[in-house]
Amino acid sequence: MRITRLAAALLPLMLSPAAFARDFVLTDTSAGIEQANWTTSSAKLGIKSATPFSITKTTLHGGRQEGSTLITIDTGNLKLQLIPTRGMGLYRASSGDVTLGWNSPVDEIVHPSFINLEQRGGLGWLDGFNELMVRCGYEWTGHPGTENGRLMSLHGRAQNIPASKVVVSVEEKAPYRITVKGLVKEKTFKFSDLETWAGVSVVPGEKTFRVHDELTNKSDYERDYQIIYHSNFGAPILEGGAHFSAAIEEISPFNDYAKKGLADWPTYLPATPGYDEMVFNIKPYADADGKTLAMLSNKAGDRGVAVGFNVQQLPVLTLWKNTDSVKQGYVTGIEPGTSYAYPRQIERAQGRIAKLAPGATQRFDLEYRILGSAADVRAAQSGIDAIQAGREVRLNETPMAKE
Amino acid sequence: MRITRLAAALLPLMLSPAAFARDFVLTDTSAGIEQANWTTSSAKLGIKSATPFSITKTTLHGGRQEGSTLITIDTGNLKLQLIPTRGMGLYRASSGDVTLGWNSPVDEIVHPSFINLEQRGGLGWLDGFNELMVRCGYEWTGHPGTENGRLMSLHGRAQNIPASKVVVSVEEKAPYRITVKGLVKEKTFKFSDLETWAGVSVVPGEKTFRVHDELTNKSDYERDYQIIYHSNFGAPILEGGAHFSAAIEEISPFNDYAKKGLADWPTYLPATPGYDEMVFNIKPYADADGKTLAMLSNKAGDRGVAVGFNVQQLPVLTLWKNTDSVKQGYVTGIEPGTSYAYPRQIERAQGRIAKLAPGATQRFDLEYRILGSAADVRAAQSGIDAIQAGREVRLNETPMAKE
Amino acid sequence: MRITRLAAALLPLMLSPAAFARDFVLTDTSAGIEQANWTTSSAKLGIKSATPFSITKTTLHGGRQEGSTLITIDTGNLKLQLIPTRGMGLYRASSGDVTLGWNSPVDEIVHPSFINLEQRGGLGWLDGFNELMVRCGYEWTGHPGTENGRLMSLHGRAQNIPASKVVVSVEEKAPYRITVKGLVKEKTFKFSDLETWAGVSVVPGEKTFRVHDELTNKSDYERDYQIIYHSNFGAPILEGGAHFSAAIEEISPFNDYAKKGLADWPTYLPATPGYDEMVFNIKPYADADGKTLAMLSNKAGDRGVAVGFNVQQLPVLTLWKNTDSVKQGYVTGIEPGTSYAYPRQIERAQGRIAKLAPGATQRFDLEYRILGSAADVRAAQSGIDAIQAGREVRLNETPMAKE
Repeated sequence: MRITRLAAALLPLMLSPAAFARDFVLTDTSAGIEQANWTTSSAKLGIKSATPFSITKTTLHGGRQEGSTLITIDTGNLKLQLIPTRGMGLYRASSGDVTLGWNSPVDEIVHPSFINLEQRGGLGWLDGFNELMVRCGYEWTGHPGTENGRLMSLHGRAQNIPASKVVVSVEEKAPYRITVKGLVKEKTFKFSDLETWAGVSVVPGEKTFRVHDELTNKSDYERDYQIIYHSNFGAPILEGGAHFSAAIEEISPFNDYAKKGLADWPTYLPATPGYDEMVFNIKPYADADGKTLAMLSNKAGDRGVAVGFNVQQLPVLTLWKNTDSVKQGYVTGIEPGTSYAYPRQIERAQGRIAKLAPGATQRFDLEYRILGSAADVRAAQSGIDAIQAGREVRLNETPMAKE
Repeated sequence: MRITRLAAALLPLMLSPAAFARDFVLTDTSAGIEQANWTTSSAKLGIKSATPFSITKTTLHGGRQEGSTLITIDTGNLKLQLIPTRGMGLYRASSGDVTLGWNSPVDEIVHPSFINLEQRGGLGWLDGFNELMVRCGYEWTGHPGTENGRLMSLHGRAQNIPASKVVVSVEEKAPYRITVKGLVKEKTFKFSDLETWAGVSVVPGEKTFRVHDELTNKSDYERDYQIIYHSNFGAPILEGGAHFSAAIEEISPFNDYAKKGLADWPTYLPATPGYDEMVFNIKPYADADGKTLAMLSNKAGDRGVAVGFNVQQLPVLTLWKNTDSVKQGYVTGIEPGTSYAYPRQIERAQGRIAKLAPGATQRFDLEYRILGSAADVRAAQSGIDAIQAGREVRLNETPMAKE
Repeated sequence: MRITRLAAALLPLMLSPAAFARDFVLTDTSAGIEQANWTTSSAKLGIKSATPFSITKTTLHGGRQEGSTLITIDTGNLKLQLIPTRGMGLYRASSGDVTLGWNSPVDEIVHPSFINLEQRGGLGWLDGFNELMVRCGYEWTGHPGTENGRLMSLHGRAQNIPASKVVVSVEEKAPYRITVKGLVKEKTFKFSDLETWAGVSVVPGEKTFRVHDELTNKSDYERDYQIIYHSNFGAPILEGGAHFSAAIEEISPFNDYAKKGLADWPTYLPATPGYDEMVFNIKPYADADGKTLAMLSNKAGDRGVAVGFNVQQLPVLTLWKNTDSVKQGYVTGIEPGTSYAYPRQIERAQGRIAKLAPGATQRFDLEYRILGSAADVRAAQSGIDAIQAGREVRLNETPMAKE
């Protein structure tokens, strides 16, 4: 039964953690709700905010987009788009003249019903990959590998599972924080019973958005999990001379090819035909609370993005430099995770498969800050420097594993 | 062209075998009909029955349910749900305080467009498995195997093929038998041209429902077929001390692990973490017409379900004891079939692959009786005893095959 | 956002090459347009043509057809149907008592979301195969093969990709040529960035339709491509004694089995249980412009179809004789291509993988002429004879490769 827009908008929602928030259920499999198109705004909600905002959901049509959904939060100084049908992935964010995201040859928002993850020996995920942020997990992540004769396809299943519930919440008091949460279920009889409440929040007036995810093992057994928050940035921040910065204890090349890039690993080439990708494995330093920060800044040092995360949740960081030609996809990934991008059997052998007890929940908190000025960039660098605290970065020239 | 509800409801249907029945076409690919939501009732049909009934079809939304359809027959003392988009599988049945079905970690009715049967080495079927009764067939069934370099994935394709035609029939005279039939096509150029009219009927006032399937080989060549009617029951009937009963000539463990369970194979443990599953292969006895009966009853012996079938159609019976933890899926399967659950190559070697001549049709008739009292349970046991006729059950301790 | 029928009908379209044409956008992923049902006609357009016509789009429902779309062009003396959701494949064409197409066991228009191309070791394409003309390409074609551990499934992906844009154009001046074009994207990050504008045109009053495709390599790298225009004809043209004719330099059997058919390769058997298929590889002769012609004609020589193509675009021709039983699929394929039907690694070794420079476009032009009389058949044969110019056909009894 499809509930009318009005009725659904009025539905109170029990699961919201934010008291005094108005909740709007846009999708709910248990109630048969899937609102194709929906919108609200500060005006419509009677909020007289200094930063008026709107939140809109649309359903896309045509080609391999048929049935994909897109939610856009627009606060004037920050516009953020996410894709409920693709595991709540973040599509684009923009503020002023800075856009986060990149241009993939995959130029549509592909619906999971058109994706076969096992295609090309487990690379079918690449048929839909074009987002700003992809959750690569949670049952497994990384390059394709085989365990017990079963193919673990590239970067897991979560990004190609449409959310079972989607809730938009707007806090009733200033600053009227907006949260969008979606429930992504990885369920396979005998194998997996993981549920992730994948959420993103925006405070109107800020240029920052925050990811708050809660992964729960609903099964009666301890279960492995892996996650990489594959966060991807292209132009205008990425350019020849752009710079990566983070608080780093150790860095090593992912493979022999990346050895060649170790000399100038923190800086970026312009779009370079034939470059393909170089990947570096980073062990970050963090502050006493586990918080750390990584940044991509442009050549002039006056635009950038800072990615904050917590090493107690996400202990390792993959730096993916894909400064290939523009049309091939000129992009870099800043990817906090529990694992590096090796196949699961390597991650297992090296002890980077995390465990979740029966019924246990693991949180993941990330912050993406758009840096719109030299001052913003300097402030982020100061934060990184404070964590680094003058300690040297250890360069390990030998890849830690061979695929 | 989508035909209006009214027009479709008026469409006479030629293919109904029941004379004097009113037919309602809910799906018909040849006419472009897919009625998203539909309902009728004895009142609406002007039937003054002592047992008023309703029949409802809904289309589900959100997550991996998007587009799934569900038909509910409710006669007051029996409620039966089936899933046209999942090969006409039976989802749940209930009468009084007895519910047939079980709780799988897969808690949504997954649409086949989200299923990749070849995932996990051919175990993708497990991504959608949560039904009371699944037709595992008909081109092949059983555990994944490879023939001629081609993977035969777990339990065949039928359950993940949406029905091409769906017809609801209500007989015009008392007792107003209700039949829902769906046409499930397994068609692959060069390989398969099987059509199954998968039907279920309910007589208002009874606590029994009957499955009447007709599998036709539409091709010009003799073709193999295999089928397992995977009928699954959890709480409240299944519990510690619940009992399985059937007329049995011989029973053997499916594999070495099940050997351990041979001593007390007819009784059930409570939910037992780490139990996984034990499977037993049963050769049933039958009466002179081939009819036989199996029963699951609760510990007190006052609730249960009896499954009747015909060994001329379904010569073997698999008993699947999956008394694992509750969240892992506490369930037992009573599974009449042409085959045991071994991969096709083993079933072939042991002569359990059935053949269907060009144009030939094979019927399969099953009866599911909900037992709501000790008297009901005793009556079913009497039926089983009459078939067993005092003959001993032969226990064969050696599995008949090794996967 | 779904645009209303009226608004979309009014949308001017920039990409149409035909000046003075009215364009109707039926699908456009970039604008969120997917018109479920649409129709126009010469009358509606105010065209007072001697050959009134209609163009209709419908969306199909039920079973594995759910969501498939079908466009029908009807000019009175030619009716042509194509399937936007299946890569713009041509479904059927008819004129008078001649129908082009064939009866496959696959009797529905299967939506790609139900197809797993990698099923049965890469034969999943056969689950949907029933068209008059299928584009087998463009990233790869041919029998399944493995390169770098990656399965290249049968006949590529294009036929199972729904078009991202679909435009109907009607020229504003006599003879009011009708064109339907669809954009089929084969996009995979790192691997493929091919776009094909797949078009077909009909001139009201003619019994001919023309395919005009433009394949563009949107990437920055040179890329391989392969294409086979798999054009399939059954009854009434195909029958015992039907005849194939073409301008041929050399013909050879595809494999050892086809050797047996070399003696009478140009004539057809009636439906022959157990025949399976014989395939022949043909190197055509062409005229000075590269144009060549192949024909299938019935036994009486008064009905047929002529297929024109250009060997500069499509240098080789596969003749697929599948004169098996009627229900198995009694059909022959006349298949101009860049490649024969061998797996890609064989085509590569023998030098038949074409290359497309970055940004380059390759056109493919084919003409299908329905022959409705003995005179029509004689005229087509004259055209073939003129190209053959009395040169002998070289029969090579040895298959050029072994799978």
